[in-house]
Amino acid sequence: MPSPEETNGEHPSAAIEADATGGADEATRQPISTVVIIIAMQTEALPLVSKFQLSEDTDGILFPKGVPWVRYHGKYKDLNINLVWPGKDLLLGVDSVGTVSASLVTYASIQALKPDLVINAGTAGGFKAKGASIGDVYMASDVAFHDRRIPIPVFDQYGIGARRSFCTPNLLKEVDLKLGRLSTGDSLDMSPYDEGAILANDAVIKDMEGAAVAYVADLLSVPAIFIKAVTDIIDGEKPTAEEFLQNLVAVTANLDQAVTQAIYFINGRCLSDL
Amino acid sequence: MPSPEETNGEHPSAAIEADATGGADEATRQPISTVVIIIAMQTEALPLVSKFQLSEDTDGILFPKGVPWVRYHGKYKDLNINLVWPGKDLLLGVDSVGTVSASLVTYASIQALKPDLVINAGTAGGFKAKGASIGDVYMASDVAFHDRRIPIPVFDQYGIGARRSFCTPNLLKEVDLKLGRLSTGDSLDMSPYDEGAILANDAVIKDMEGAAVAYVADLLSVPAIFIKAVTDIIDGEKPTAEEFLQNLVAVTANLDQAVTQAIYFINGRCLSDL
Repeated sequence: MPSPEETNGEHPSAAIEADATGGADEATRQPISTVVIIIAMQTEALPLVSKFQLSEDTDGILFPKGVPWVRYHGKYKDLNINLVWPGKDLLLGVDSVGTVSASLVTYASIQALKPDLVINAGTAGGFKAKGASIGDVYMASDVAFHDRRIPIPVFDQYGIGARRSFCTPNLLKEVDLKLGRLSTGDSLDMSPYDEGAILANDAVIKDMEGAAVAYVADLLSVPAIFIKAVTDIIDGEKPTAEEFLQNLVAVTANLDQAVTQAIYFINGRCLSDL
Repeated sequence: MPSPEETNGEHPSAAIEADATGGADEATRQPISTVVIIIAMQTEALPLVSKFQLSEDTDGILFPKGVPWVRYHGKYKDLNINLVWPGKDLLLGVDSVGTVSASLVTYASIQALKPDLVINAGTAGGFKAKGASIGDVYMASDVAFHDRRIPIPVFDQYGIGARRSFCTPNLLKEVDLKLGRLSTGDSLDMSPYDEGAILANDAVIKDMEGAAVAYVADLLSVPAIFIKAVTDIIDGEKPTAEEFLQNLVAVTANLDQAVTQAIYFINGRCLSDL
C-alpha cells in the first residue's frame, strides 16, 4: 500500500497535514488511495473478487480470531481495493446478512484499513410505483431505517437514522446509475408497519444493511456510497423470497458491472471529483 | 489494571497459559478478573457509576476518535469493572439505544478490554401473561431476535439468532432473579408481526439490545449474561412509551441493586462457580 506521499506527488506536505489533523477539506483534494467495499453475500462478492483478481487474506491478523469475516484485497492501477464480506454464519452456514454484521465489519474494516471511501454494494428490493424494475442499479441519495420505531420525541428520529450519502454527481452520471432513497431493515419481507415507514422514508429501494453501514461510516467520518441492484419488486405479484432467489445471480451481474465501472472512475480521482 | 499474575496469586502460570491459548476450561477455573457491563441508557448507568465510584475515561484512547461511547472503570475488591455506555447520539443527543450501537460497543469493548464476562444490563418490557410485573428483575436464560424475518430456509434461523446465555445457576439463586427468555428488536413498540415472533421465541421479556450483545460476545467467545428489569407491561393497558418513561427511574433502582449484588457475588469467583 503506498504512503500518502507516494500517491500525492504534488503536495506531500498537504497530504501529511491532512492525515495528522483529519482535515476533510485537504483529504478531498488528494487522489483516493483506499476503498473498502462492503458486500453482504458471497454470491454478490465473488464476481468482483474474480474481476479485480483480489486475494483473500489468509494470515488472520486483520480481524479478531473466530469471526467469519473475509477480506479480499488487491489493486486497480493506483487504487487499493478491499472487499469485505461478513462471511458465513459459523453455526448455520448462511451469509451473515443484516445490520448487526454489516455494522461490525464496517467498523472493523474502517479501523484496520483507514479507507478514504466506503462502498456498500448489494441487492435490494425495488418499488415499481416509484419507477424501479428488476435489474436496475441505484445509487442511494439518502438512507434511513424502517424497522426501528421508538415513539418518544427525538428517539423517533434516532431510530429512523436518516442520512444523506456522500454526494457523487459525476460518478452517478459516468456509471449511468439511477438515483433514489434507500430504506434499511433486518427483514427480507415487508410488514404493513415497515411499509408505512418505508413510504415515510420516501424510499424507492429497500435493503438489509445500507443505513447501518452509513451510521458506522458517519461515526468514523468516512464518506460512504451505496450501489444497489434490484432483485425483486416489493409492490409486485411474486413473493419476495422467491423472486429474490430467482434473480439473484442475474442481477448480481448488473451490480458487479456497476461497481466495476465505479472503481474505474474512482481511480486517480479525489473525493471532490466524484 | 492489574496483570493476570496479580489478580491470580495462587495459579499465575495457569492464568498465563489460559491467556495464551484461549483455553476455556482453564479460564473457567480462575477467578474472574475483568467484567464489561454494557448499558444502553445513561439513566440506567449512572447509579452504578456512583455506587462503585467508577471513573470516566477522559484520555480517549480506548475507543476511536469521534464515537460517543463512554467507558467508566474502577475496582470492586479484586474485580476490574468496566461499564460501557454507547453515549448520546452526536447529532440528536439521545441515548444510542438499539442493536447496532450495542453491537459496536460490545465488539470494541471486548477487543480493548478482554473481559472474562460481559453483563448486559438494562430495562425491558414484560408479559404479564407469562408472569412479569413492573419492577421484576430477570436473568435471561435465552435470547433471540423478533424483528429479523428472513423467510428462506436456514436464513430464517440466522435471523432469529437464538442463543443460550451463559448459565449461572448460583448467581441466579444468590441475587434472587427471575429466569426467562428475552426477545430483542429495534422498536420500543410491538407490531403484530413482532408479537408473533416474540411468542414463537417463548419470551417473557423484550428489549432492544440483548440478542445483539449475545451475538457479538458469542462471535468473540466471551460468556455473556443478561440482567433486565421490567419497566412496562407489553400485554397491559398503558401505551409502552408512556409506561416506560413513567417507571424508568424507579425500576432502574431495582436493576442497579441486582447488578450490584451480581458484582458482589462474581468477585473472587470463577466462571464455573457462577
